[in-house]
Amino acid sequence: MKVIPGPSSIQLGNKIAEILGVETVAVVHKKFPDGESYIRLEGEVKGEEVVIVQSTGPPQDTNLIQLFLLADAAKDLGAKHVSAIVPYLAYSRQDKRFLPGEAVSIQTIGKLLKASGIDELITVDIHQEKVLESFEIPAKNLSAAELLADHFKSRGLAGALALAPDEGRIEFVKEASRVLGGGYGWLRKERDRYTGKIRIKEATVDVSGREVIVFDDIISTGGTMADAIKIFKEQGARRVFAACVHPLLIGNAKEKILQSGAEEIVGTDSVPSDITVVSLAPLLAKALAEKFKG
Amino acid sequence: MKVIPGPSSIQLGNKIAEILGVETVAVVHKKFPDGESYIRLEGEVKGEEVVIVQSTGPPQDTNLIQLFLLADAAKDLGAKHVSAIVPYLAYSRQDKRFLPGEAVSIQTIGKLLKASGIDELITVDIHQEKVLESFEIPAKNLSAAELLADHFKSRGLAGALALAPDEGRIEFVKEASRVLGGGYGWLRKERDRYTGKIRIKEATVDVSGREVIVFDDIISTGGTMADAIKIFKEQGARRVFAACVHPLLIGNAKEKILQSGAEEIVGTDSVPSDITVVSLAPLLAKALAEKFKG
Repeated sequence: MKVIPGPSSIQLGNKIAEILGVETVAVVHKKFPDGESYIRLEGEVKGEEVVIVQSTGPPQDTNLIQLFLLADAAKDLGAKHVSAIVPYLAYSRQDKRFLPGEAVSIQTIGKLLKASGIDELITVDIHQEKVLESFEIPAKNLSAAELLADHFKSRGLAGALALAPDEGRIEFVKEASRVLGGGYGWLRKERDRYTGKIRIKEATVDVSGREVIVFDDIISTGGTMADAIKIFKEQGARRVFAACVHPLLIGNAKEKILQSGAEEIVGTDSVPSDITVVSLAPLLAKALAEKFKG
Repeated sequence: MKVIPGPSSIQLGNKIAEILGVETVAVVHKKFPDGESYIRLEGEVKGEEVVIVQSTGPPQDTNLIQLFLLADAAKDLGAKHVSAIVPYLAYSRQDKRFLPGEAVSIQTIGKLLKASGIDELITVDIHQEKVLESFEIPAKNLSAAELLADHFKSRGLAGALALAPDEGRIEFVKEASRVLGGGYGWLRKERDRYTGKIRIKEATVDVSGREVIVFDDIISTGGTMADAIKIFKEQGARRVFAACVHPLLIGNAKEKILQSGAEEIVGTDSVPSDITVVSLAPLLAKALAEKFKG
């Protein structure tokens, strides 16, 4: 097995290869003056099982095209099997036709992944795991819940309450609470029948005096996370931490969350960020080791 | 037949539909705060033969992804046949493996076009027509040479000399000269055997006292065009005009070319620009009319 660290995930790719003790194939990458990407593999892949590591956070479209170029080049150069580790899979949130005529974007991405020569996909905490069923290639979704909870536990937060900002993440906080041992809950939301606006109601558990960690899959503009933190603080939580798998942190998301009363924001290296980072490398290396052993 | 003007080619798409007198399906398009594209078709495409018009100039990757989303959505919504008019096809210049390990990017793009549901491609003056042979969908390459030459003829430049900045565009200037009637030629180049640098030598025809039009397929950073114009001016050309099909005009390309002594820069609406524009709509409408008549 050889690991190809893509331009968006050079560090993560190298870390995974290091843990597994396997060779990497470096990628020469540049942008032409007009904005097109140039990709060149600097090592032999003929007859190899290769693992491309390329996350697709912003700029999503460029990272996706680079992933397609990498996979097709590897196949064209004779790679026997191409796995793609895409910790953050762009367009995952457009997973159904909410309005007539809409593109179901993640379905399109699934087709493009296959067409570019990818034989198998590994991703992390995709927004809705169900969408992977529509992909025509095998796709595995890993969870970073334990990894993130471990980080907080090792930082003295055993016993903290694991909370989700909405019902969609209940499984995630359930898993985190197995590590932290302080129980879990979520924010119950209610839609105003007249205005259609969402009114956040209250936590499903008593947060007063507790250490609280709010877990979400993605922090994008930070609004959901900041609102949740404000409410938990109002309801008497002692300290509140923000945690996520994919810290996109668009615009002033970081400031917004810190101003809402969060002690700290913790994320993974799924996408680059300037917050406290827990590396996905051990989780991804373990998944690869199991796969290639079997 | 219905025309879908994509976000990058709204005006061109609407013009084509107008000439043909066919309905358009409008596209609702926005960018999410994180940079992902949102696409929604505002009309019925079920059972229809649709023609998507979406050029892929800068930002190439985003325009490509939008094209894929549009095509897949149209197919998914029941379109019978999807043609794509992509006047400028991104990544066309990476059409072979110049160095070992390189991605042959245009080959990858060909696979993605097919996977997204496009049944047939129409493009204009692709850098090397030969690359279309590797595509698994039928692909037609039109030339805007006559259209551009017609423009200059109607502006009083009948009899002008049609010159190419290198040998790669000889067919183009040959075609243009059939309209202009003033002959054609190109710049002979020589590579220095020691430094590897290209030294431009001289025009294959006498340019002194002549009205000259330099035709190229793409103007990117403008270096090639500006150098050619300088040489023709030095060799005594009376007036020199710059013409191209795809005016990418990266950075200060426009200034560079005008400072080299060009009277004017003329391009097509293949990609947006702020130079004199000749519309591709009649050429593309004619090609569609012939196709759907047959």
